[in-house]
Amino acid sequence: MDRPLVGILMGSESDLSVMNKAAEVLNELGISYELGIRSAHRLPEETAAYARSARERGIEVLIAGAGMAAHLAGVIASHTTLPVIGVPIASGALKGVDALYATVQMPPGIPVATVAIDGAKNAAYLACSILSIKHPECAGKLEAFREQTRKSLLEKSEKLKNK
Amino acid sequence: MDRPLVGILMGSESDLSVMNKAAEVLNELGISYELGIRSAHRLPEETAAYARSARERGIEVLIAGAGMAAHLAGVIASHTTLPVIGVPIASGALKGVDALYATVQMPPGIPVATVAIDGAKNAAYLACSILSIKHPECAGKLEAFREQTRKSLLEKSEKLKNK
Amino acid sequence: MDRPLVGILMGSESDLSVMNKAAEVLNELGISYELGIRSAHRLPEETAAYARSARERGIEVLIAGAGMAAHLAGVIASHTTLPVIGVPIASGALKGVDALYATVQMPPGIPVATVAIDGAKNAAYLACSILSIKHPECAGKLEAFREQTRKSLLEKSEKLKNK
Amino acid sequence: MDRPLVGILMGSESDLSVMNKAAEVLNELGISYELGIRSAHRLPEETAAYARSARERGIEVLIAGAGMAAHLAGVIASHTTLPVIGVPIASGALKGVDALYATVQMPPGIPVATVAIDGAKNAAYLACSILSIKHPECAGKLEAFREQTRKSLLEKSEKLKNK
Amino acid sequence: MDRPLVGILMGSESDLSVMNKAAEVLNELGISYELGIRSAHRLPEETAAYARSARERGIEVLIAGAGMAAHLAGVIASHTTLPVIGVPIASGALKGVDALYATVQMPPGIPVATVAIDGAKNAAYLACSILSIKHPECAGKLEAFREQTRKSLLEKSEKLKNK
Amino acid sequence: MDRPLVGILMGSESDLSVMNKAAEVLNELGISYELGIRSAHRLPEETAAYARSARERGIEVLIAGAGMAAHLAGVIASHTTLPVIGVPIASGALKGVDALYATVQMPPGIPVATVAIDGAKNAAYLACSILSIKHPECAGKLEAFREQTRKSLLEKSEKLKNK
Amino acid sequence: MDRPLVGILMGSESDLSVMNKAAEVLNELGISYELGIRSAHRLPEETAAYARSARERGIEVLIAGAGMAAHLAGVIASHTTLPVIGVPIASGALKGVDALYATVQMPPGIPVATVAIDGAKNAAYLACSILSIKHPECAGKLEAFREQTRKSLLEKSEKLKNK
Amino acid sequence: MDRPLVGILMGSESDLSVMNKAAEVLNELGISYELGIRSAHRLPEETAAYARSARERGIEVLIAGAGMAAHLAGVIASHTTLPVIGVPIASGALKGVDALYATVQMPPGIPVATVAIDGAKNAAYLACSILSIKHPECAGKLEAFREQTRKSLLEKSEKLKNK
Repeated sequence: MDRPLVGILMGSESDLSVMNKAAEVLNELGISYELGIRSAHRLPEETAAYARSARERGIEVLIAGAGMAAHLAGVIASHTTLPVIGVPIASGALKGVDALYATVQMPPGIPVATVAIDGAKNAAYLACSILSIKHPECAGKLEAFREQTRKSLLEKSEKLKNK
Repeated sequence: MDRPLVGILMGSESDLSVMNKAAEVLNELGISYELGIRSAHRLPEETAAYARSARERGIEVLIAGAGMAAHLAGVIASHTTLPVIGVPIASGALKGVDALYATVQMPPGIPVATVAIDGAKNAAYLACSILSIKHPECAGKLEAFREQTRKSLLEKSEKLKNK
Repeated sequence: MDRPLVGILMGSESDLSVMNKAAEVLNELGISYELGIRSAHRLPEETAAYARSARERGIEVLIAGAGMAAHLAGVIASHTTLPVIGVPIASGALKGVDALYATVQMPPGIPVATVAIDGAKNAAYLACSILSIKHPECAGKLEAFREQTRKSLLEKSEKLKNK
Repeated sequence: MDRPLVGILMGSESDLSVMNKAAEVLNELGISYELGIRSAHRLPEETAAYARSARERGIEVLIAGAGMAAHLAGVIASHTTLPVIGVPIASGALKGVDALYATVQMPPGIPVATVAIDGAKNAAYLACSILSIKHPECAGKLEAFREQTRKSLLEKSEKLKNK
Repeated sequence: MDRPLVGILMGSESDLSVMNKAAEVLNELGISYELGIRSAHRLPEETAAYARSARERGIEVLIAGAGMAAHLAGVIASHTTLPVIGVPIASGALKGVDALYATVQMPPGIPVATVAIDGAKNAAYLACSILSIKHPECAGKLEAFREQTRKSLLEKSEKLKNK
Repeated sequence: MDRPLVGILMGSESDLSVMNKAAEVLNELGISYELGIRSAHRLPEETAAYARSARERGIEVLIAGAGMAAHLAGVIASHTTLPVIGVPIASGALKGVDALYATVQMPPGIPVATVAIDGAKNAAYLACSILSIKHPECAGKLEAFREQTRKSLLEKSEKLKNK
Repeated sequence: MDRPLVGILMGSESDLSVMNKAAEVLNELGISYELGIRSAHRLPEETAAYARSARERGIEVLIAGAGMAAHLAGVIASHTTLPVIGVPIASGALKGVDALYATVQMPPGIPVATVAIDGAKNAAYLACSILSIKHPECAGKLEAFREQTRKSLLEKSEKLKNK
Repeated sequence: MDRPLVGILMGSESDLSVMNKAAEVLNELGISYELGIRSAHRLPEETAAYARSARERGIEVLIAGAGMAAHLAGVIASHTTLPVIGVPIASGALKGVDALYATVQMPPGIPVATVAIDGAKNAAYLACSILSIKHPECAGKLEAFREQTRKSLLEKSEKLKNK
């Protein structure tokens, strides 16, 4: 898994603090990725070119995060048949409801797999789930992560009880 | 004013019943236009090509109507410096709030002049206002329309009083 | 592709009219699936059992549709590491906003790939995208579908112009 | 009332600052309780086991607090016929509207007695109301609390008047 | 169980079509109830008197349904320490979101156990859950109902599979 | 105007910082008032008694501010035929939308004159408008206030121009 | 009470079906009124002139109903110091939430006494409350109406009980 | 371009921090403008006078920013046939949703070209787009700005990649 399997894109550098969490989770899961800024509105051609070439470059899942009228994930999905995960980012007065609607309410034919507002971590876990249908080790990684979460929560619960 | 000054685009043929009202108003105002289907997601390249060539073909204002995660107006605006008017269309469960947010909440640099949900008539009146800064007869047309509205409302008000 | 690769679940028989559209799209794409009713609240054990055994039975993608406080997709995702696509269904007074929030706003660790409210068609297209990373013919099917959509839209646009 | 009559559960340790208020009110009312972390998504089996055994262990009311796509109360209610009180917790971009809808909009058959967003105090008062139908001293406790509130408010009102 | 254990109140006769569903479920569960119109705004004194005398008349759970600025459940809860279940009713332009907020967002001290918008059935099931802590046969009735639901859903699921 | 013409009520002492603005405006306008805490839920009898006696005590307008499921103004209006002005107060997770709906969406027969969320100043100006139909000097006070506002805004506008 | 004391205005003839209910209630209460169409946007000068002359023509309360970006009540209030009651009308895709916000959220200094969406009846009852501070017979009319409502509701409640 | 082509108006001095961004963008683009405070409610006559004289004074585009029940842009549009751009400003409890609805949901005949909440920068870019149909140099300025944005984003993306 040395070449990037996942492409993480964001609409602006201000989205980095959120989208970095996707990168961190992929690091923990040992899944290689590439990171870049693309914008449906300010870099339309570069965005289209990136999406169109992704599959042949070996990318298997795309993650796109954007705020406000968040068109990035949808525009990427219009240029590739790879699965595209959309992360609506909370920014501006509407706090991400705008980005959620602009990401999830895609018309028939061009879906975006949308996660929670600011849900960059889950975008990475979802990418790992998707990869698991082809790369069986990804299922194991998720199971290990879940087992570890389980233990940690039960320990915390035990401490609560004894307080 | 024989060549089209206004390009009216819609994301799908189901948007025609709404967007036709823009065409009707432009007909009444005597402003020539062209009408077509373009889709940010299903016709990305044709949409970009249309927007990029619009100014040189003599188009001065673009009107784009779309529903749900309505990216059409924003995507068109990313490919032209002409003024782009967005009409959010009410369709699906969210009844146009999704389309409104996806149209109006554009990030800095690529604005869309958004009108009311299903506000295709106002898109045409706004196009006429915009044209009026270059074509003085458009101001006159709007003034005549407003004067006629004024008289009609006052007559209706008079009838109400006498009921 | 004879054994089912996709499991389509719904929370109640009243969701069938929406979820059948996912089945129809999978039929068109030639992807085999199985269909059933499971309920996070009324069949919790059967739902858990279904999700836990899905991968070993050869299922690669799960689609779950539910309305109101739509817990089905999330509960399924908690019992499997397969990718789970959630379809929020518009029912009751809140018209699907409740189902959207209950499906998409999953906490870190257990993502649901959410599509539009009543977006069962897109759930099927997204399932096909996901399968395409392992089954290359799925990419071809999506490309063919998109090309056909493209032609159909351009024809409709042409007719509009000549009206 | 030495054995716990109320079980307070929360979806994550970050919910403790809110849910502790339920514990504090129960302390003031002299009602014994137990406190723990359970998660519909990250501890599905432990959550089901807890709910299924609650009645026979002497628990009479369950309180469950969770944020975002808050499935905890609903999932608990699916595994017990005891009354389950849900506390939607404000966390993340949607500030608890997501948790409210995911908690209150339960489908027919499996109700959750929902209180206000972050309304952990009222969950405890409601638990006391419910217990009062079997334990008459609980009614007295609520009456005493209300009488004390009444006096305190009237004193504050008096001070306001004399300012 | 001959004397009424549950009091079902509604703010206006137009709420009867919704609130009757609570009565029907209580009938099926064999729980006796009384039904009446009370209004926080149009019958304030009768409403207060009803709530204040409910416990001594043997009522153990109150169910109150109202639409718009739905104050009924909260006003009843201010006059009794019995558990009060609120049913927000969808009426008028806001379709029940107003009633939901006016019912569930109660301030500390006076809780209302809120169910889904138009969720009168669940109000009855919740009343039965609450009664079950004192009347053990109520737990059995809920278990029987759930088992019957379970079988019915599995049969429907089986039919779906064989279509 | 020595005896109080306006009664300002609030649901809790925490509403004082908002409701004090109504008192300040009435002071500036030279209209006497009284201030108190009343609560639809925690002081139901005192609230009813206050409202029922207000007219005979010479009060002509009532102002009631409350947050969350804000029943105060509606409950007061149910006990008097005096005009009642409601101030929805932003508190808790829903930031006043709950209070707005619970105040403004009153059913036919018992209206509340609702002002903006946290709009205590406007409650006082509205009280003055209402009083002006009986006390002509109140109209003069409002005109003077508006003229002063007008001059102040034009001066500020002038400064802006010269920057 | 022969000369009109109340002026009822609406933004368009399509608002008549809603606003007529205010007229009907005023008829029942025996309060004279006048009815007309004025529009903040389409008849700005006539609207200003109407508002500015209302007090001297003997009008004591104004009622203004409008839909969508409902500016009518606010614009009227800016031209008079009489009390202005705003009726937000549900029309178009947003079903009156737009009209509610545009009517109630007035900035400090120019209040609008807002009633429920489509709440034209309550606008009339509120007008009567306001008039009651000057015209004592109006208080009696409201009391009679409320007593009649009370009796009618209690009769309906009695019938319910005996079914 | 020495005389002002653009008029920037705001409803109160507190809107200056937002609206100044429109002025800054126009400065960068070399488009002259004038700045002032006008208020639909507190300066109705000065606002009407400004709008009515704007075209003859050489203004070609108007930008109006206001918060809450933001009537300013609509009222200006009712007094001129020039294109009017509305900037909904986030202030108060509703954070700009009120201003957005009050600005964008204009009734047929009097459109407002609405940009994002607090989107003053985009109001300026949109003004430049509109001016570009008459002043060709404006198109060039926008193209230069976009090219510069494009380069800057690609550089930032490159840095991200190499981190």
